[in-house]
Amino acid sequence: MKTTIIGLGLIGGSLAKDLRKSKFATELIGVDANKNHAKQALELGLVDQINTLEEAVKNTDLIIIAIPVDKELEVLPVVLDKMNGNATVSDMGSAKKIIVDSIKNHPRRKNFVPAHPMSGTENSGPTAALEDLFKGKIAILCDQENSGPQHLALIEKMFQSLGMNIAYMSADEQDHSTAFVSHLPHAAAYALANAVQAKEDRNIIFDLASGGFRSTVRLAKSSSSMWHPIFQQNSKYVIESLDVYIKHLQEFRDSIKHEQYDKLKELIVNANKIRVVLDGENSHMIKNEEKITKFYTK
Amino acid sequence: MKTTIIGLGLIGGSLAKDLRKSKFATELIGVDANKNHAKQALELGLVDQINTLEEAVKNTDLIIIAIPVDKELEVLPVVLDKMNGNATVSDMGSAKKIIVDSIKNHPRRKNFVPAHPMSGTENSGPTAALEDLFKGKIAILCDQENSGPQHLALIEKMFQSLGMNIAYMSADEQDHSTAFVSHLPHAAAYALANAVQAKEDRNIIFDLASGGFRSTVRLAKSSSSMWHPIFQQNSKYVIESLDVYIKHLQEFRDSIKHEQYDKLKELIVNANKIRVVLDGENSHMIKNEEKITKFYTK
Repeated sequence: MKTTIIGLGLIGGSLAKDLRKSKFATELIGVDANKNHAKQALELGLVDQINTLEEAVKNTDLIIIAIPVDKELEVLPVVLDKMNGNATVSDMGSAKKIIVDSIKNHPRRKNFVPAHPMSGTENSGPTAALEDLFKGKIAILCDQENSGPQHLALIEKMFQSLGMNIAYMSADEQDHSTAFVSHLPHAAAYALANAVQAKEDRNIIFDLASGGFRSTVRLAKSSSSMWHPIFQQNSKYVIESLDVYIKHLQEFRDSIKHEQYDKLKELIVNANKIRVVLDGENSHMIKNEEKITKFYTK
Repeated sequence: MKTTIIGLGLIGGSLAKDLRKSKFATELIGVDANKNHAKQALELGLVDQINTLEEAVKNTDLIIIAIPVDKELEVLPVVLDKMNGNATVSDMGSAKKIIVDSIKNHPRRKNFVPAHPMSGTENSGPTAALEDLFKGKIAILCDQENSGPQHLALIEKMFQSLGMNIAYMSADEQDHSTAFVSHLPHAAAYALANAVQAKEDRNIIFDLASGGFRSTVRLAKSSSSMWHPIFQQNSKYVIESLDVYIKHLQEFRDSIKHEQYDKLKELIVNANKIRVVLDGENSHMIKNEEKITKFYTK
């Protein structure tokens, strides 16, 4: 299948690698506003050719938009306008409601399948692209009732070819859940990096940093160009998640301050339950041989 | 060297493995108040024999205390009282000022070398013990002027035999720096686990959790028995670090709330600097062939 990827960074580049490996894409056309990234992507063999946005969406079967969500707001309507009327469009961004709302009256709304594969690293650009980045992870498809069945089926098949499981949610539900499970951890790491750097000498941080600090603060390395638009577009739920987090931190702090050590133990023991949650002993993910899917939509 | 390890969990057990491997310890005696842990440690071959505290400290050259810091407060004076007067004692706990103060007038204060190796995992008990847990990490030695030179030299040699670098700090400085670089990341992870579990269905957490959430929340799996006494004993600096962290989170939240996106970008770009700090390009760690040490004490 002739596939166009718009945005050849960590996500678009990793997607290109796996779509080629799985033979889902037979020809890969790349678009990138950053000329240097476009050149690197070609040199790395991520795509077969680089083209302008307009040319790249004209004669292709599948278009994947993998650019920061603020840029996607500008690019998505242009893609829908200029592309072949039978083509399928999907995207990879972490905030979905604003994107979906922005094209809800577009005559080609049914060609679009809003998606969010829950995978990434703290690195960016074509050189950060990794094989199997998505394998075993979940792809969230949003508002599936608003996509044409053939377009939805194609995107499901694409994510399955990457080894992904699929969850269906409304755009609003996905924005709420990812605020807590993804956007909040990023905000927590950014603030941790800023707090520690404000108070400790950088040599002391380096010398004392063990695996624990490195792991907790890792997401603070993530690029601003990708992340500030996510916080901006999903501001309602990101603020809610930060308020809940600050409340729990305050409670933790107060239990120490007021020497309520039984309370402190209780907070730690409750937090420890995340081990079982992450081991997934209670997951009700539906499994069958063909695909693993889960419907969260009420 | 005949060595007694009090506490055969993650830290004491890992220490036993490496002291045996490096041949620093020729005979290993273990003490553990938890009979099951003592039995496991013997079965795993971590130690050669299990004994009572009193017997185990009588005829030994080196005693390492690797138990939660609240328990250490009770055990350390007993060890100093009962041991051979030429023996050396060290410990592995993460909060040091209260420990040091508690025995400052003990006639055998000079036999004690307060230490904190900056390494661990989120797991606990003898089965969590790992080879090379300490390799390449830093061991902080506190208030070195209050230890006898022969005792200090022995503990330096022990940590070097584990492949560790050594930093010297006052107990107060170590408590401040580890509050920010270690205790705060643990508190941040505990509160993150509690916040997310309070707001999201556990199946959704499992299904959506990608590497980013898992990494940021990992320390929330750490045991209460080890961690609540650290927060308690280092409460002054832990509270300071939590207040600084909450202030930075609030600033992050407010920049989103008030749509100050330039400010938000600035906060993210500043946080990104942690990448360079952790890569250590600016570390001034003194290196020579014998040992790598750094004096932070002013």
